[in-house]
Amino acid sequence: MSEKNIKNFEVGEEIQGFFLIRSLNLKTSTNNKKYLDFTIADSTGELNSKFWDLPDDLVGQFKAGDVVKLRGTVTSWQNSLQMKVTKMRLSEPNDNVRVETLVQSAPEDSTAMMQELRGYVAEIGMEKLRELVERILELYAEKFEIYPAAKKHHHAIRSGLLYHVLRMLRSAKVLCGIYGNLNKDMLYAGVILHDIEKINEMEADALGIVSTYSFEGQVLGHIIMGIKKIDAVAEEIGLDREISLLLQHLILTHHYEPQYGSPKKPSIPEGELLHYLDMIDARMYDMEKAIAGIAPGTFSDGVQSIDYRRIYKPSYSKGEEE
Amino acid sequence: MSEKNIKNFEVGEEIQGFFLIRSLNLKTSTNNKKYLDFTIADSTGELNSKFWDLPDDLVGQFKAGDVVKLRGTVTSWQNSLQMKVTKMRLSEPNDNVRVETLVQSAPEDSTAMMQELRGYVAEIGMEKLRELVERILELYAEKFEIYPAAKKHHHAIRSGLLYHVLRMLRSAKVLCGIYGNLNKDMLYAGVILHDIEKINEMEADALGIVSTYSFEGQVLGHIIMGIKKIDAVAEEIGLDREISLLLQHLILTHHYEPQYGSPKKPSIPEGELLHYLDMIDARMYDMEKAIAGIAPGTFSDGVQSIDYRRIYKPSYSKGEEE
Amino acid sequence: MSEKNIKNFEVGEEIQGFFLIRSLNLKTSTNNKKYLDFTIADSTGELNSKFWDLPDDLVGQFKAGDVVKLRGTVTSWQNSLQMKVTKMRLSEPNDNVRVETLVQSAPEDSTAMMQELRGYVAEIGMEKLRELVERILELYAEKFEIYPAAKKHHHAIRSGLLYHVLRMLRSAKVLCGIYGNLNKDMLYAGVILHDIEKINEMEADALGIVSTYSFEGQVLGHIIMGIKKIDAVAEEIGLDREISLLLQHLILTHHYEPQYGSPKKPSIPEGELLHYLDMIDARMYDMEKAIAGIAPGTFSDGVQSIDYRRIYKPSYSKGEEE
Amino acid sequence: MSEKNIKNFEVGEEIQGFFLIRSLNLKTSTNNKKYLDFTIADSTGELNSKFWDLPDDLVGQFKAGDVVKLRGTVTSWQNSLQMKVTKMRLSEPNDNVRVETLVQSAPEDSTAMMQELRGYVAEIGMEKLRELVERILELYAEKFEIYPAAKKHHHAIRSGLLYHVLRMLRSAKVLCGIYGNLNKDMLYAGVILHDIEKINEMEADALGIVSTYSFEGQVLGHIIMGIKKIDAVAEEIGLDREISLLLQHLILTHHYEPQYGSPKKPSIPEGELLHYLDMIDARMYDMEKAIAGIAPGTFSDGVQSIDYRRIYKPSYSKGEEE
Amino acid sequence: MSEKNIKNFEVGEEIQGFFLIRSLNLKTSTNNKKYLDFTIADSTGELNSKFWDLPDDLVGQFKAGDVVKLRGTVTSWQNSLQMKVTKMRLSEPNDNVRVETLVQSAPEDSTAMMQELRGYVAEIGMEKLRELVERILELYAEKFEIYPAAKKHHHAIRSGLLYHVLRMLRSAKVLCGIYGNLNKDMLYAGVILHDIEKINEMEADALGIVSTYSFEGQVLGHIIMGIKKIDAVAEEIGLDREISLLLQHLILTHHYEPQYGSPKKPSIPEGELLHYLDMIDARMYDMEKAIAGIAPGTFSDGVQSIDYRRIYKPSYSKGEEE
Amino acid sequence: MSEKNIKNFEVGEEIQGFFLIRSLNLKTSTNNKKYLDFTIADSTGELNSKFWDLPDDLVGQFKAGDVVKLRGTVTSWQNSLQMKVTKMRLSEPNDNVRVETLVQSAPEDSTAMMQELRGYVAEIGMEKLRELVERILELYAEKFEIYPAAKKHHHAIRSGLLYHVLRMLRSAKVLCGIYGNLNKDMLYAGVILHDIEKINEMEADALGIVSTYSFEGQVLGHIIMGIKKIDAVAEEIGLDREISLLLQHLILTHHYEPQYGSPKKPSIPEGELLHYLDMIDARMYDMEKAIAGIAPGTFSDGVQSIDYRRIYKPSYSKGEEE
Repeated sequence: MSEKNIKNFEVGEEIQGFFLIRSLNLKTSTNNKKYLDFTIADSTGELNSKFWDLPDDLVGQFKAGDVVKLRGTVTSWQNSLQMKVTKMRLSEPNDNVRVETLVQSAPEDSTAMMQELRGYVAEIGMEKLRELVERILELYAEKFEIYPAAKKHHHAIRSGLLYHVLRMLRSAKVLCGIYGNLNKDMLYAGVILHDIEKINEMEADALGIVSTYSFEGQVLGHIIMGIKKIDAVAEEIGLDREISLLLQHLILTHHYEPQYGSPKKPSIPEGELLHYLDMIDARMYDMEKAIAGIAPGTFSDGVQSIDYRRIYKPSYSKGEEE
Repeated sequence: MSEKNIKNFEVGEEIQGFFLIRSLNLKTSTNNKKYLDFTIADSTGELNSKFWDLPDDLVGQFKAGDVVKLRGTVTSWQNSLQMKVTKMRLSEPNDNVRVETLVQSAPEDSTAMMQELRGYVAEIGMEKLRELVERILELYAEKFEIYPAAKKHHHAIRSGLLYHVLRMLRSAKVLCGIYGNLNKDMLYAGVILHDIEKINEMEADALGIVSTYSFEGQVLGHIIMGIKKIDAVAEEIGLDREISLLLQHLILTHHYEPQYGSPKKPSIPEGELLHYLDMIDARMYDMEKAIAGIAPGTFSDGVQSIDYRRIYKPSYSKGEEE
Repeated sequence: MSEKNIKNFEVGEEIQGFFLIRSLNLKTSTNNKKYLDFTIADSTGELNSKFWDLPDDLVGQFKAGDVVKLRGTVTSWQNSLQMKVTKMRLSEPNDNVRVETLVQSAPEDSTAMMQELRGYVAEIGMEKLRELVERILELYAEKFEIYPAAKKHHHAIRSGLLYHVLRMLRSAKVLCGIYGNLNKDMLYAGVILHDIEKINEMEADALGIVSTYSFEGQVLGHIIMGIKKIDAVAEEIGLDREISLLLQHLILTHHYEPQYGSPKKPSIPEGELLHYLDMIDARMYDMEKAIAGIAPGTFSDGVQSIDYRRIYKPSYSKGEEE
Repeated sequence: MSEKNIKNFEVGEEIQGFFLIRSLNLKTSTNNKKYLDFTIADSTGELNSKFWDLPDDLVGQFKAGDVVKLRGTVTSWQNSLQMKVTKMRLSEPNDNVRVETLVQSAPEDSTAMMQELRGYVAEIGMEKLRELVERILELYAEKFEIYPAAKKHHHAIRSGLLYHVLRMLRSAKVLCGIYGNLNKDMLYAGVILHDIEKINEMEADALGIVSTYSFEGQVLGHIIMGIKKIDAVAEEIGLDREISLLLQHLILTHHYEPQYGSPKKPSIPEGELLHYLDMIDARMYDMEKAIAGIAPGTFSDGVQSIDYRRIYKPSYSKGEEE
Repeated sequence: MSEKNIKNFEVGEEIQGFFLIRSLNLKTSTNNKKYLDFTIADSTGELNSKFWDLPDDLVGQFKAGDVVKLRGTVTSWQNSLQMKVTKMRLSEPNDNVRVETLVQSAPEDSTAMMQELRGYVAEIGMEKLRELVERILELYAEKFEIYPAAKKHHHAIRSGLLYHVLRMLRSAKVLCGIYGNLNKDMLYAGVILHDIEKINEMEADALGIVSTYSFEGQVLGHIIMGIKKIDAVAEEIGLDREISLLLQHLILTHHYEPQYGSPKKPSIPEGELLHYLDMIDARMYDMEKAIAGIAPGTFSDGVQSIDYRRIYKPSYSKGEEE
Repeated sequence: MSEKNIKNFEVGEEIQGFFLIRSLNLKTSTNNKKYLDFTIADSTGELNSKFWDLPDDLVGQFKAGDVVKLRGTVTSWQNSLQMKVTKMRLSEPNDNVRVETLVQSAPEDSTAMMQELRGYVAEIGMEKLRELVERILELYAEKFEIYPAAKKHHHAIRSGLLYHVLRMLRSAKVLCGIYGNLNKDMLYAGVILHDIEKINEMEADALGIVSTYSFEGQVLGHIIMGIKKIDAVAEEIGLDREISLLLQHLILTHHYEPQYGSPKKPSIPEGELLHYLDMIDARMYDMEKAIAGIAPGTFSDGVQSIDYRRIYKPSYSKGEEE
C-alpha cells in the first residue's frame, strides 16, 4: 500500500492517501449502476478517478472541494493513468491533513510574504496614498494571503497573487534606483493594487482554488472593479483627486493592449513600468514552470499562455537541477 | 456693407456683423507690428481672419469664445478666403445677439427635447432604476441641454448629445415592440446614460463648444467615469445590485470593440442593441451632413469619421432639396 | 410506449413516434453485420441513433431527409443519450405527420408573413423599382416561404429567411420615420432582396432544411448572385440605371466588412442602415435563442456565432418564463 | 528658345513647345486680375504653370485634356520649378503633334500587341469559351488598345492594360508547360478578361489618361462589372454554365485578399496562378520604373504601391544603363 | 493473402507485405500484456496497427524508421481501418525492398533532376557567384538529392526539395526572358539556395522522411542558417561583398511576410520574383495533390496549407484522369 | 551680441556663436543670386537658417557636419524662428569648441560608462563566452563609446547606445537576484551585444550623429549582422556551439514581434527578459524626455515613438524641476 504523490503513480500500484476532489460527477452506467467520475489532486498533480458500483450510503456524500481519504488501484485507460477507487471517506479534523500536501503553493511562506508586503507599504511617502493602500489591504488581507493570481496560467497556485505582487515590488524598488525620475509612491501603490480585485472577480475556496468567476467579475472584470474600489476609498479618506485618478489610471492601463482589457495606455512612466513588471513576473513564472521537470538540453511542451512556445533548458543548466 | 453668413462670403465683399471667435493668436510681424491671427465663426461656417497693425488699446482685449462685432473685407490667400479686419469690438448685452446665429445647433428645440426625454424616463417601470436615471439627469440637466456629443464628428453641435440620445430613444421604443424579449427599462436607462459623462469628459462653454478634454476625461474616459457615477448613485439610493451592475455593463460595452474603448462585449441583448442604435444614429447624422450641401447625382468629399468614404446623393433625391 | 419530444427523452424510456432522418450511414460491424448509424430529429432536437443487425429487406430503404416511424429505447453512451432502434418504416401519406412537429419553424405563420411582406412591397413608391421587387419575389415565392436564413446560426429554421426579412422591414418602417432623409423605397427593396439568392446558394428540401451549398453558391456566393439577378431583371423591365446600380450596391455592401464578403462599404445611408438592421435581427435572434432554456440569474453556454460569448438571463426576467 | 522635354528643364530657360494640359483652374489674383493656374505635361513629366494677367480673349479657351502650344520661362518657386507662360494657343491639326511626345506609353507598339493578343485568343481550344473572349474583346477593342491599367501606380500609361495582359499571357503560356495539370483555356481567358471592366470603371480620354472613375466603377467596381459582363455574354452565346461560373470565379478571386476586393479565394489552380501572374507583372513594372533613372549602387525613393519600399539598383547593373 | 497497397485495403482482408514503421509505441494492456501500437506506411498511405500479445523475443526489436515484413488482418475501429498484426520481422538486404514502394517520392528521377540542376548552375555567368553555388551544392549534394521540402505540406516527399527548386528554376528561366531587366545569375543563385539550409533545419533519414527539427533549426531557422552559410563561403572564396549581401538579402526576404519569417521585404526585383515563384510552386503542388484522387465535378476536402480551402476539379478535366 | 543657446533664441536678437551644420543646400534665388538654406544645431536644439547673397568666395566652403562660427539675426517666418546669417566661417582648432555644447549627449561620462561596462563583462563566469564578448567589444570599443542607439527616437544622442546598454545591465543584475533561475552570463552577454551591430548598421560621424544607414544595414539589418558577427567570432575562439547558438537566438528574438524584425520569439527566459529590459529602458528614456520641459499638471505633445501618446507630468512632481 503506497503513499506516493500523484506525479509518481505507476500502473498497477495500490494507493492509499489523502486527496482533494477537484471536480466530481455522479453518473449511471448502462447497466443502471451509480458510479462516481471524479478528479483527485494533490500538490503534485491531478488524476481522473472512477468509483464503480458506488454503495448507496455514499451517494451524495462527496463534492468538489472536499478532502478525502481513499484507497484504489492505478490503471491505464487510453494511454492515460486512471484511479479505480474501492474505498473513500471524507477527511476529518484529526487526520491532520496539511494544505501544503493537497495544493500547490507559492514557494515562500505566506505570512512572511505579507510582512514583507507591509514593509513596502510603509515606504510609501505620500501619507494619504499610503492610507488608501493600507485600508484596502486591511479589507482584503485574509484573502490576499491565499488567493492565486489566475484561474489558469501564471501563479494559479495558493498565495500566487501575493507572491506575484511581492516579486514585482522587489523589482520596482531597484528600478526606482536606476530610473531616478520615477515616483516610488505611485509605483508601489500601483503594483500592490493592480490585481487586487481579482479577489472579488474569482471565487476561491480556503485552499486558494478558483472554481468560477463572480457575476461582477464577468460583467465588469477586475480592472473596472479595482478602479471603483480605489475611487470609493479615496473619496472616503480624502485622497488628493489627481493622485486618485492617476492611481485609477495605473489600474486601467496595466494590461496595456485594448484586446487584453486596457482601453487606454499609460500616460505616466510608472504605468509603463507597472505593465512591464507585470509581464516579466508572469513570464518568468510560466517559463520556470515549463522547464522545471525536463532534462537539460531539451525543449518543454508548448506553453499555452505564450502561444504554445516551447521553452529550452540549456545543457549548462545541469548543475541547477541537483 | 453686407451682413451675409460666412458660407456665402465672396472675395472682395465688405462685411459687417457679429461673429464668435473660435481661436485667436496675438502675433508680431517681421516689421515688429502686432496683429491678430484668429478664426471667426457663425452657424454656417468658419473663416481665418487677420487684424493687421492692431491698435495698442485693443491688445489683450479679445480671446477665444468671445462674441465680437467686426468690419472687414473678404480676401483670397492661397486658394482660401480670408477676412481682413479693420474694426472690432466685443458684443454687448443690448446687441441682442442670438446664440442660434453664432453656433450650429441641433435641429430641434432643446427645451422640447428635454421634455420629451423626461417622458421616456417616466416610462421606466422599475422604480429604483427610474430614480437613478432621474437623479443623474437632475445633476447634469443644465449641461445636458447644451452639450455636443463630440469634439469633432458626429453631433458636434449645440445640444448634440441630447438630440443623439433622443433619436436613439425613439428607435429603442419601436424596436422594443418588434423584439418582445427586450427589457425596455434597461434599454432606456442604458440609452439615456450611455454617454452621460461626456459632460465631464469634455469641457464645453455656454455655446456648447468643446475646446478641450478634462483631466479625468484623458486618464479614464467617459465610459469609466459613467460606470463610477452609476455605481455611486446606485449605492446611494439602494438600487438592486444586479441591475446596477448590468447597467454599468451596458455603459462598459457600448463601444463594442476593445480598440474603441470597450474591454468587454455585451452579455445581454439590450447591450447589443444599444451599440447598434448608437452606431445608426451617429452614421445617419454624419452621412446626412455629408450630402447636405452637394448636388444630386454627385459624391461628397471623403467623410473622416467613416474612413474617408465618399457619400452619394442620388439623382432621385432632387426634390428633397427644395 | 412514450411519444415524447426528443428534448424530453430520458435514459431507459421506450419510444415510438415519427422523426426526420437528418443524416444516415450504413455501416458494417466487426462481426460483419450491417447496421444503421443515423441522426433523427423533431422540432425540439436531434439524437444519434443505431439500428443494429439491420434486417436485409431494410438495407437501402432509408436516406437523409426521410420521415420515418420508429420504435426504440433511449440509452446512454459516453455521457450522451442515444436511441437503440428496433423497428422502423417510412412514413406514409395517411400518417398525416405535420411538418411543424418535425422541424423547427419561425414563430409566425408563413402564409401570414408572406402577406405582410407583400404589403411592404406595395408601399414602394417608385413604380419600376416595385415592379423589379415583385418580379423577383414572384420567381422565388414558393422557396422564400420555407427557406431558412442560414445553414447554421441565425434563423436556421423553416421560413427563417422570410421571418428575418420581415422583422427587418418592420424596423425599417419606423426608422424611416425617425430619420427623415432616408429613401423608403430603396431601403425596402434592399431589405427584401439582400439575401434573396440564399435561395439558390443553399439547397434546401421541402422541410426547409439545408444540407449543402450549390456550385454557384460556392464559387460566387449569394451576394454576387443577387447582384447578377437584379441586373438581369432591371435590364428586362427597363429600371432606371442609377437606381438599379444603387440597389446592386446595397446588396454588395450589406455584409459591410471585406472579410465577411463585402468588398465595398455603403455609399448611401440606406446601405448603412440595411447593414445594421441585418445585424440587429441576427443578433436578437441568436441571443434570444441562447437564453431561451436557461434559468434566470445564469449565463448561457458560449454562442458560436458571436465568438462564444455567454449570454446572461437577468433575475428580473423570471416572469417571462412562465 | 528651347524645345526640351520637361524633365530636362532648368531655371531661367525660355521654352517653346507643345504640351498637354493635365489640369487647369482660372483664378483671380488679389489685385483682381484673372490668371491661369495649370499643369502641363509631356511624355517625360509634369510642371505647374502660371499664365498671369490672362488676356480677356483667352478666358475660357482652355481646359484639361487640351493640347496647346506655349511659350514661357522656367522659374523656381519654393524649391520646385514652375513655368511662367506668356503666350499660349490650342494646337491645330496641321501642327502634327504626335501622341507619343505628350503622354507616356507602353514600350511596345499597341497594334502589334493587339495582334499578339489575338494569337493567344486563337489558342483557346474550348470553342464557346473562345467565342466569349472574342466577343468581349470585339466590344472593347478600341479602348483596350489605349487604356492604362490604373489611374496611378502600375501601368498607368497609354496601352498599359494591354501591355499588362500580354506579359501575363507570355508567362502563362510557359507556366502551362511546367505545370501540366493547368487548363490553358481557362487560364488564358482569365488573364485576358481579369481587368477588362477597368475600361468602364475608369474614364480615360483618347490619350489614355484617366481623370475619374465612372459611377458604376465607384458603387460596384471592375470585378463585379466583369462578372456581370461575362455572365451576360455567356448566356447570349450558350456557354456551358460550369465554365462560365468558373470564369466568373477567376475574375472574383484574382485580387485574392478580401481587403483588396476579392471576397473569395480561388478554388481552381488557374485562379491561384492568375493572381500570382498579376502580382508579378505589376511588381516587375513598378520596380523597373523605380530604378530606371537612378545610379547603380543606390536606392530609389520609396515606391508608394509597395509600402514605400526603396528599390536598389546593384552596381553590377552598370552596363544596362548605356 | 494479398499484397495490396495500403490505400486499397478493405475490412477483412488478410495482408502480407513490406512496410515502413512511421511511429511505434510499446504499451501494456490492462491485463498486463505487452503490445505494439504503431503506424505502418507505404508509398500510398499510412495505417494504424496493433500487435497484441507481443511475444517476449520481439520486445525491443522494432523502432520508427524500420522496414518490416508483416502479416495481419484489416479490421475496423471507430470508422477507421486498422491492421491487426500477427507476425512481423525486420526486412533484410536480400528482401530487395525498393524505396519507391515504401515512401512517396517526387515524380521525376532524382539523378536526372540533379543533372538538370547542375545545368542551371553552369548558366550562372558571374564566376565567383557560380563558384559559391557550386561549393555549397557540393557540400549538400547527397542530402539535397533525397530531402523533402517540408515536414508536412508542400513537397513533403522524398526529393521534394530538389523537385521544388527545379520547377522554380524552369519558371525563372522563362520569366527572365519576359522581364528583361532581371539578373538571371542572382535569380538562379537565389532559387537554388533559398531553402538550402532546410537540410540542416530538419533531420531526415535515408528515406527522406523528417521526424524532427535540429536544435539550430529551432532557435534560428533555415533562413538565418542559410544567410550564415552564404556569408561564410562567400568570405572563403572572395565573392564581391555587394553580391554576397544581396544574395543573403534574397534568402532573408523570400518568405516575404514578417509573420512567416522574413523581417524585411525584397529590395531588388529578383527577390520579389523569387518569392512568387516559391509560392506558385508550393500552391500548384498542394492543389494538384488535393484533387488528384477526386471525381470531376466535385470539391476536395479542405486543404490545410491554404486555410482549409476546398479545391474544385472541373467536369471538363474528365479526360485527364484516364 | 548674444551667445545664447538655440532654445532660448527670441525674434530680433543678434546672435554670434559656434554651431553645427546639420544639413545644407546651396540654392539660387529667382533674382539669380546664390544663397545657403541650412540647419544649424547646438546641444539644445536646431534652427533653419538662410545666408542670402552668399559671397562668391564662400560658395562650396560648407557642408553638413561642419562646425562653424556665425553671426546673424533671429527672424520669424510663418510662425517659426529663422536665422538670417550675415557672416560665417569654419571653426578652427584654436577655437576650442567643446563637443558637449554642439550635440546632445548621454547624461553620464562616456569614459566612466565604458569602465562600468567592462566591470559587467568581467562578471561573466563562462570563460569562452566572456572572451567572445571581450573580443567583440575590443573591435568596436571606439565607436561604442560615442554611437547613438538610434537615428531618431530613443537615445538618439551621443553615447546613447552605451548609456542604453549600461542601464539595462544595471537592471539585469538586480533581476538576476530576484529571479534565481536566470543565467547571468547569458543575460549579460545578450544585453551587451543585442544592438552591437547598430554600429555598422548606421553611419555616424565623430559627433555621434547618424546621417544614414549602411548598405548592409539596409538589406540585412543589425539583428542579422549581429548574429553573423557572433557566429564568426564564436567559431574563431571555439565557443561551445549550444551557447553560441543561444546567444545568436537572443539577438534574433530581442525585438520580439515579427513586424519589428524578430522572426522568432525567445525560447529561454533570458531572451524574454532581454526584450523587456530593452523596452523599459527605451520607454523610460522617451517618456522622461517628453516631460522634461513642460509644466507640472500638464500633458506633453504626442510622442511619436509611442503612437503619439501624450505623457502627463503630475502636479506633485513640482519639486523635481528645481
